Amino acid sequence: MSVSSWKREHFEEGPDLKLFKTRFDFMNNPRNGKTEKMIILESVDSVNVIARTPEKEIIFVRQYRFGIGVETLELPGGLVDRGEEAKGAGKRELEEETAYTGAQWVSLGKIASNPVFMDSYIHHYFADGVQPDGQQQLDDGEMVEVVKIPEDEVYQLFLEGAFHHPHAVNALLRYFVHMQKIK
Amino acid sequence: MSVSSWKREHFEEGPDLKLFKTRFDFMNNPRNGKTEKMIILESVDSVNVIARTPEKEIIFVRQYRFGIGVETLELPGGLVDRGEEAKGAGKRELEEETAYTGAQWVSLGKIASNPVFMDSYIHHYFADGVQPDGQQQLDDGEMVEVVKIPEDEVYQLFLEGAFHHPHAVNALLRYFVHMQKIK
Repeated sequence: MSVSSWKREHFEEGPDLKLFKTRFDFMNNPRNGKTEKMIILESVDSVNVIARTPEKEIIFVRQYRFGIGVETLELPGGLVDRGEEAKGAGKRELEEETAYTGAQWVSLGKIASNPVFMDSYIHHYFADGVQPDGQQQLDDGEMVEVVKIPEDEVYQLFLEGAFHHPHAVNALLRYFVHMQKIK
Repeated sequence: MSVSSWKREHFEEGPDLKLFKTRFDFMNNPRNGKTEKMIILESVDSVNVIARTPEKEIIFVRQYRFGIGVETLELPGGLVDRGEEAKGAGKRELEEETAYTGAQWVSLGKIASNPVFMDSYIHHYFADGVQPDGQQQLDDGEMVEVVKIPEDEVYQLFLEGAFHHPHAVNALLRYFVHMQKIK
Protein backbone atom coordinates (compact mmCIF):
# COMPACT_ATOMS: atom_id res chain seq x y z
CA MET A 1 0.00 0.00 0.00
CA SER A 2 1.53 3.27 -1.12
CA VAL A 3 1.97 6.14 1.31
CA SER A 4 0.31 8.31 -1.36
CA SER A 5 -3.01 6.46 -1.29
CA TRP A 6 -4.72 8.94 1.05
CA LYS A 7 -8.17 10.00 -0.14
CA ARG A 8 -9.50 13.50 0.35
CA GLU A 9 -13.11 12.93 1.43
CA HIS A 10 -14.10 16.58 1.41
CA PHE A 11 -12.76 20.00 2.26
CA GLU A 12 -13.94 23.19 3.87
CA GLU A 13 -12.78 26.72 3.30
CA GLY A 14 -11.16 28.18 6.39
CA PRO A 15 -10.66 31.80 7.47
CA ASP A 16 -8.83 34.33 5.29
CA LEU A 17 -5.53 35.32 6.96
CA LYS A 18 -4.45 38.12 4.57
CA LEU A 19 -1.17 36.42 3.62
CA PHE A 20 -2.97 33.09 3.17
CA LYS A 21 -6.29 31.58 2.38
CA THR A 22 -6.91 28.53 4.50
CA ARG A 23 -8.53 25.20 3.69
CA PHE A 24 -9.26 22.16 5.81
CA ASP A 25 -8.83 18.86 3.98
CA PHE A 26 -10.48 15.80 5.50
CA MET A 27 -8.02 13.06 4.61
CA ASN A 28 -8.70 9.37 4.97
CA ASN A 29 -5.64 7.47 6.16
CA PRO A 30 -5.17 4.27 4.10
CA ARG A 31 -3.32 2.68 7.03
CA ASN A 32 -6.20 2.76 9.51
CA GLY A 33 -9.28 4.08 7.68
CA LYS A 34 -9.49 7.10 9.99
CA THR A 35 -10.27 10.56 8.68
CA GLU A 36 -8.17 13.47 9.91
CA LYS A 37 -8.72 17.20 9.42
CA MET A 38 -5.61 18.81 7.93
CA ILE A 39 -4.98 22.54 7.62
CA ILE A 40 -3.61 23.85 4.33
CA LEU A 41 -2.40 27.43 3.86
CA GLU A 42 -2.98 28.45 0.25
CA SER A 43 -0.83 31.19 -1.21
CA VAL A 44 1.06 32.29 -4.28
CA ASP A 45 4.65 31.17 -4.75
CA SER A 46 7.58 33.31 -3.67
CA VAL A 47 11.08 33.97 -4.94
CA ASN A 48 14.47 34.90 -3.54
CA VAL A 49 17.58 36.07 -5.31
CA ILE A 50 21.33 35.68 -4.91
CA ALA A 51 22.36 39.02 -6.43
CA ARG A 52 26.10 39.40 -6.91
CA THR A 53 27.97 42.59 -7.79
CA PRO A 54 30.93 42.64 -10.22
CA GLU A 55 33.11 42.87 -7.05
CA LYS A 56 31.76 39.45 -5.92
CA GLU A 57 29.64 40.78 -3.09
CA ILE A 58 26.20 39.35 -2.40
CA ILE A 59 23.30 41.67 -1.63
CA PHE A 60 21.36 41.01 1.58
CA VAL A 61 18.48 42.79 3.23
CA ARG A 62 18.41 43.28 6.95
CA GLN A 63 14.83 43.30 8.23
CA TYR A 64 12.87 42.92 11.43
CA ARG A 65 10.91 39.69 11.25
CA PHE A 66 7.66 39.71 13.18
CA GLY A 67 7.39 35.93 13.55
CA ILE A 68 10.44 35.53 15.77
CA GLY A 69 10.80 39.20 16.74
CA VAL A 70 14.43 39.57 15.65
CA GLU A 71 16.46 41.15 12.88
CA THR A 72 17.48 38.79 10.13
CA LEU A 73 19.85 38.95 7.21
CA GLU A 74 17.96 37.58 4.24
CA LEU A 75 18.10 37.47 0.49
CA PRO A 76 15.99 39.96 -1.45
CA GLY A 77 12.72 38.46 -2.58
CA GLY A 78 9.00 38.32 -2.09
CA LEU A 79 5.74 37.03 -3.43
CA VAL A 80 5.12 36.25 -7.09
CA ASP A 81 2.14 38.32 -8.22
CA ARG A 82 -0.75 36.49 -9.87
CA GLY A 83 0.00 36.09 -13.57
CA GLU A 84 3.66 36.98 -13.08
CA GLU A 85 6.53 34.60 -13.83
CA ALA A 86 8.87 33.71 -10.98
CA LYS A 87 11.90 35.23 -12.70
CA GLY A 88 10.02 38.46 -13.36
CA ALA A 89 9.03 38.57 -9.70
CA GLY A 90 12.68 38.10 -8.74
CA LYS A 91 13.77 41.02 -10.92
CA ARG A 92 10.98 43.22 -9.60
CA GLU A 93 11.55 42.34 -5.94
CA LEU A 94 15.32 42.77 -6.20
CA GLU A 95 14.91 46.26 -7.63
CA GLU A 96 12.06 47.28 -5.28
CA GLU A 97 13.91 46.16 -2.17
CA THR A 98 17.49 47.08 -3.04
CA ALA A 99 17.54 49.24 -6.23
CA TYR A 100 19.89 46.67 -7.77
CA THR A 101 19.24 45.27 -11.22
CA GLY A 102 21.19 42.64 -13.09
CA ALA A 103 21.61 41.32 -16.58
CA GLN A 104 22.47 37.64 -16.09
CA TRP A 105 19.73 35.54 -14.48
CA VAL A 106 20.09 31.83 -13.77
CA SER A 107 17.48 29.62 -12.12
CA LEU A 108 18.76 27.74 -9.07
CA GLY A 109 15.62 25.62 -8.72
CA LYS A 110 12.85 25.72 -6.17
CA ILE A 111 11.73 24.09 -2.94
CA ALA A 112 8.39 23.70 -1.21
CA SER A 113 7.73 26.56 1.24
CA ASN A 114 6.67 23.94 3.78
CA PRO A 115 5.29 20.74 2.24
CA VAL A 116 3.39 19.79 5.38
CA PHE A 117 0.79 22.56 5.39
CA MET A 118 1.57 25.02 2.58
CA ASP A 119 0.82 24.58 -1.13
CA SER A 120 3.42 27.05 -2.40
CA TYR A 121 7.02 26.93 -3.57
CA ILE A 122 9.94 29.32 -3.34
CA HIS A 123 11.97 29.80 -6.53
CA HIS A 124 15.66 30.65 -6.31
CA TYR A 125 17.60 32.78 -8.81
CA PHE A 126 21.18 33.90 -9.24
CA ALA A 127 21.50 37.41 -10.69
CA ASP A 128 25.09 38.12 -11.62
CA GLY A 129 26.74 41.49 -12.20
CA VAL A 130 24.07 43.56 -10.48
CA GLN A 131 24.35 47.36 -10.35
CA PRO A 132 22.51 49.86 -8.10
CA ASP A 133 20.95 51.65 -11.05
CA GLY A 134 17.28 50.94 -10.31
CA GLN A 135 14.65 52.48 -8.06
CA GLN A 136 14.04 51.26 -4.50
CA GLN A 137 10.31 51.16 -3.82
CA LEU A 138 9.36 49.56 -0.52
CA ASP A 139 5.89 48.39 0.41
CA ASP A 140 4.21 50.16 3.32
CA GLY A 141 4.86 47.11 5.48
CA GLU A 142 8.59 46.94 4.70
CA MET A 143 11.70 48.52 6.14
CA VAL A 144 15.00 47.13 4.92
CA GLU A 145 18.66 47.93 5.19
CA VAL A 146 20.67 46.82 2.15
CA VAL A 147 23.92 45.06 3.08
CA LYS A 148 26.68 43.91 0.72
CA ILE A 149 28.83 41.00 1.91
CA PRO A 150 31.82 39.52 0.05
CA GLU A 151 30.89 36.03 -1.10
CA ASP A 152 33.73 34.31 0.80
CA GLU A 153 32.37 35.84 3.97
CA VAL A 154 28.83 34.77 3.02
CA TYR A 155 30.12 31.22 2.71
CA GLN A 156 31.63 31.36 6.20
CA LEU A 157 28.38 32.75 7.65
CA PHE A 158 26.51 29.97 5.83
CA LEU A 159 28.79 27.31 7.38
CA GLU A 160 28.32 28.87 10.82
CA GLY A 161 24.53 28.72 10.55
CA ALA A 162 24.15 32.51 10.73
CA PHE A 163 21.10 32.71 8.45
CA HIS A 164 17.73 32.36 10.18
CA HIS A 165 15.45 31.75 7.22
CA PRO A 166 15.37 28.17 5.82
CA HIS A 167 14.51 29.53 2.36
CA ALA A 168 17.61 31.73 2.34
CA VAL A 169 19.70 28.75 3.47
CA ASN A 170 18.34 26.61 0.63
CA ALA A 171 19.00 29.33 -1.97
CA LEU A 172 22.58 29.76 -0.69
CA LEU A 173 23.07 25.99 -0.79
CA ARG A 174 21.85 25.83 -4.39
CA TYR A 175 24.14 28.76 -5.23
CA PHE A 176 27.26 27.23 -3.68
CA VAL A 177 26.50 23.91 -5.38
CA HIS A 178 26.00 25.76 -8.69
CA MET A 179 29.38 27.50 -8.21
CA GLN A 180 30.96 24.13 -7.27
CA LYS A 181 32.06 25.57 -3.94
CA ILE A 182 30.18 22.60 -2.48
CA LYS A 183 30.57 19.35 -4.38
CA MET B 1 17.07 54.36 12.59
CA SER B 2 17.28 50.64 13.29
CA VAL B 3 15.23 48.18 11.27
CA SER B 4 14.18 46.72 14.65
CA SER B 5 12.41 49.88 15.85
CA TRP B 6 8.94 48.73 14.83
CA LYS B 7 6.33 49.22 17.55
CA ARG B 8 3.50 46.77 18.13
CA GLU B 9 0.50 49.02 18.72
CA HIS B 10 -1.91 46.24 19.61
CA PHE B 11 -2.79 42.71 18.65
CA GLU B 12 -5.87 40.59 18.13
CA GLU B 13 -6.30 36.87 18.52
CA GLY B 14 -7.10 35.20 15.22
CA PRO B 15 -8.84 31.91 14.47
CA ASP B 16 -7.59 28.60 15.87
CA LEU B 17 -6.26 26.42 13.03
CA LYS B 18 -5.62 23.16 14.96
CA LEU B 19 -1.89 23.09 14.12
CA PHE B 20 -1.57 26.80 14.96
CA LYS B 21 -3.08 29.55 16.98
CA THR B 22 -3.14 32.76 15.03
CA ARG B 23 -2.53 36.34 16.10
CA PHE B 24 -2.66 39.60 14.20
CA ASP B 25 -0.02 42.14 15.25
CA PHE B 26 -0.60 45.74 14.27
CA MET B 27 2.95 46.95 13.65
CA ASN B 28 3.92 50.58 13.21
CA ASN B 29 6.61 51.00 10.56
CA PRO B 30 9.32 53.41 11.80
CA ARG B 31 10.16 54.31 8.20
CA ASN B 32 6.80 55.83 7.30
CA GLY B 33 4.64 55.84 10.47
CA LYS B 34 2.09 53.52 8.85
CA THR B 35 0.51 50.65 10.76
CA GLU B 36 0.26 47.26 9.05
CA LYS B 37 -1.63 44.16 10.17
CA MET B 38 0.71 41.16 10.28
CA ILE B 39 -0.35 37.55 10.70
CA ILE B 40 1.60 35.39 13.16
CA LEU B 41 1.12 31.62 13.44
CA GLU B 42 1.83 30.58 17.01
CA SER B 43 2.90 27.01 17.66
CA VAL B 44 5.24 24.83 19.64
CA ASP B 45 8.74 24.15 18.30
CA SER B 46 9.54 21.06 16.28
CA VAL B 47 12.50 18.76 15.91
CA ASN B 48 14.05 16.56 13.25
CA VAL B 49 16.73 13.92 13.55
CA ILE B 50 19.61 12.60 11.45
CA ALA B 51 19.57 9.01 12.71
CA ARG B 52 22.52 6.92 11.51
CA THR B 53 22.89 3.17 11.80
CA PRO B 54 26.24 1.50 12.61
CA GLU B 55 26.37 0.67 8.84
CA LYS B 56 26.39 4.45 8.06
CA GLU B 57 22.86 4.54 6.69
CA ILE B 58 20.56 7.44 7.45
CA ILE B 59 16.93 6.79 8.35
CA PHE B 60 14.30 8.63 6.31
CA VAL B 61 10.53 8.55 6.35
CA ARG B 62 8.57 8.58 3.12
CA GLN B 63 5.23 10.31 3.61
CA TYR B 64 2.47 11.91 1.62
CA ARG B 65 2.50 15.64 2.31
CA PHE B 66 -0.88 17.30 2.07
CA GLY B 67 0.44 20.82 1.43
CA ILE B 68 1.97 20.04 -1.96
CA GLY B 69 0.16 16.74 -2.55
CA VAL B 70 3.27 14.65 -3.17
CA GLU B 71 5.37 12.01 -1.46
CA THR B 72 8.47 13.33 0.23
CA LEU B 73 11.53 11.78 1.76
CA GLU B 74 12.04 13.50 5.09
CA LEU B 75 13.87 13.11 8.33
CA PRO B 76 12.00 11.63 11.29
CA GLY B 77 10.67 14.31 13.61
CA GLY B 78 7.64 16.17 14.82
CA LEU B 79 6.32 18.63 17.33
CA VAL B 80 7.84 19.17 20.74
CA ASP B 81 5.13 18.56 23.32
CA ARG B 82 4.46 21.30 25.88
CA GLY B 83 6.87 20.87 28.78
CA GLU B 84 9.09 18.50 26.80
CA GLU B 85 12.71 19.21 25.89
CA ALA B 86 13.65 19.28 22.21
CA LYS B 87 16.07 16.36 22.54
CA GLY B 88 13.45 14.28 24.36
CA ALA B 89 11.00 15.06 21.57
CA GLY B 90 13.59 13.93 19.02
CA LYS B 91 14.08 10.61 20.79
CA ARG B 92 10.34 10.09 21.14
CA GLU B 93 9.53 11.02 17.54
CA LEU B 94 12.35 8.90 16.12
CA GLU B 95 11.10 5.85 17.97
CA GLU B 96 7.39 6.51 17.30
CA GLU B 97 7.92 7.02 13.57
CA THR B 98 10.65 4.47 12.83
CA ALA B 99 11.14 2.17 15.88
CA TYR B 100 14.82 3.21 15.89
CA THR B 101 16.50 4.35 19.09
CA GLY B 102 20.05 5.56 19.57
CA ALA B 103 22.53 6.19 22.35
CA GLN B 104 24.65 9.07 21.06
CA TRP B 105 22.75 12.35 20.63
CA VAL B 106 24.40 15.56 19.41
CA SER B 107 22.64 18.89 18.88
CA LEU B 108 23.09 20.31 15.38
CA GLY B 109 21.47 23.65 16.24
CA LYS B 110 18.14 25.10 15.24
CA ILE B 111 16.57 27.42 12.70
CA ALA B 112 13.39 29.49 12.63
CA SER B 113 10.49 27.52 11.09
CA ASN B 114 9.71 30.62 9.02
CA PRO B 115 10.79 33.88 10.65
CA VAL B 116 8.34 35.94 8.61
CA PHE B 117 5.09 34.67 10.09
CA MET B 118 5.84 31.82 12.52
CA ASP B 119 7.12 32.13 16.08
CA SER B 120 8.59 28.62 16.31
CA TYR B 121 11.94 26.97 15.71
CA ILE B 122 13.01 23.56 14.47
CA HIS B 123 15.78 21.85 16.42
CA HIS B 124 18.15 19.46 14.68
CA TYR B 125 19.81 16.41 16.25
CA PHE B 126 22.26 13.75 15.15
CA ALA B 127 21.58 10.34 16.70
CA ASP B 128 24.44 7.98 15.99
CA GLY B 129 24.44 4.19 16.14
CA VAL B 130 20.67 3.76 16.06
CA GLN B 131 19.10 0.30 16.25
CA PRO B 132 15.56 -0.84 15.38
CA ASP B 133 14.86 -2.05 18.90
CA GLY B 134 12.01 0.30 19.81
CA GLN B 135 8.29 0.41 19.17
CA GLN B 136 6.77 2.16 16.16
CA GLN B 137 3.64 4.02 17.23
CA LEU B 138 2.15 6.25 14.56
CA ASP B 139 -0.42 8.97 15.17
CA ASP B 140 -3.82 8.48 13.55
CA GLY B 141 -2.90 11.14 10.99
CA GLU B 142 0.38 9.51 9.98
CA MET B 143 1.41 6.88 7.49
CA VAL B 144 5.12 6.46 6.91
CA GLU B 145 7.47 4.13 5.12
CA VAL B 146 10.87 3.86 6.77
CA VAL B 147 13.75 4.06 4.29
CA LYS B 148 17.46 3.55 5.00
CA ILE B 149 19.89 5.29 2.64
CA PRO B 150 23.69 5.04 2.77
CA GLU B 151 25.07 8.42 3.80
CA ASP B 152 27.18 8.88 0.65
CA GLU B 153 24.00 8.50 -1.38
CA VAL B 154 22.21 10.93 0.95
CA TYR B 155 24.95 13.45 0.23
CA GLN B 156 24.47 13.06 -3.53
CA LEU B 157 20.69 13.46 -3.18
CA PHE B 158 21.34 16.55 -1.05
CA LEU B 159 23.59 18.06 -3.75
CA GLU B 160 20.97 17.28 -6.40
CA GLY B 161 18.25 19.09 -4.46
CA ALA B 162 16.16 15.94 -4.03
CA PHE B 163 14.75 16.88 -0.60
CA HIS B 164 11.54 18.92 -0.66
CA HIS B 165 11.41 20.15 2.92
CA PRO B 166 13.57 23.18 3.78
CA HIS B 167 13.86 21.98 7.40
CA ALA B 168 15.26 18.62 6.26
CA VAL B 169 17.71 20.44 3.98
CA ASN B 170 18.91 22.62 6.85
CA ALA B 171 19.36 19.63 9.17
CA LEU B 172 21.34 17.78 6.49
CA LEU B 173 23.47 20.87 5.90
CA ARG B 174 24.24 21.14 9.63
CA TYR B 175 25.05 17.43 9.66
CA PHE B 176 27.43 17.55 6.70
CA VAL B 177 29.13 20.63 8.17
CA HIS B 178 29.39 18.84 11.53
CA MET B 179 30.98 15.83 9.78
CA GLN B 180 33.30 18.18 7.85
CA LYS B 181 32.00 16.81 4.58
CA ILE B 182 31.22 20.46 3.78
CA LYS B 183 33.87 22.94 4.90
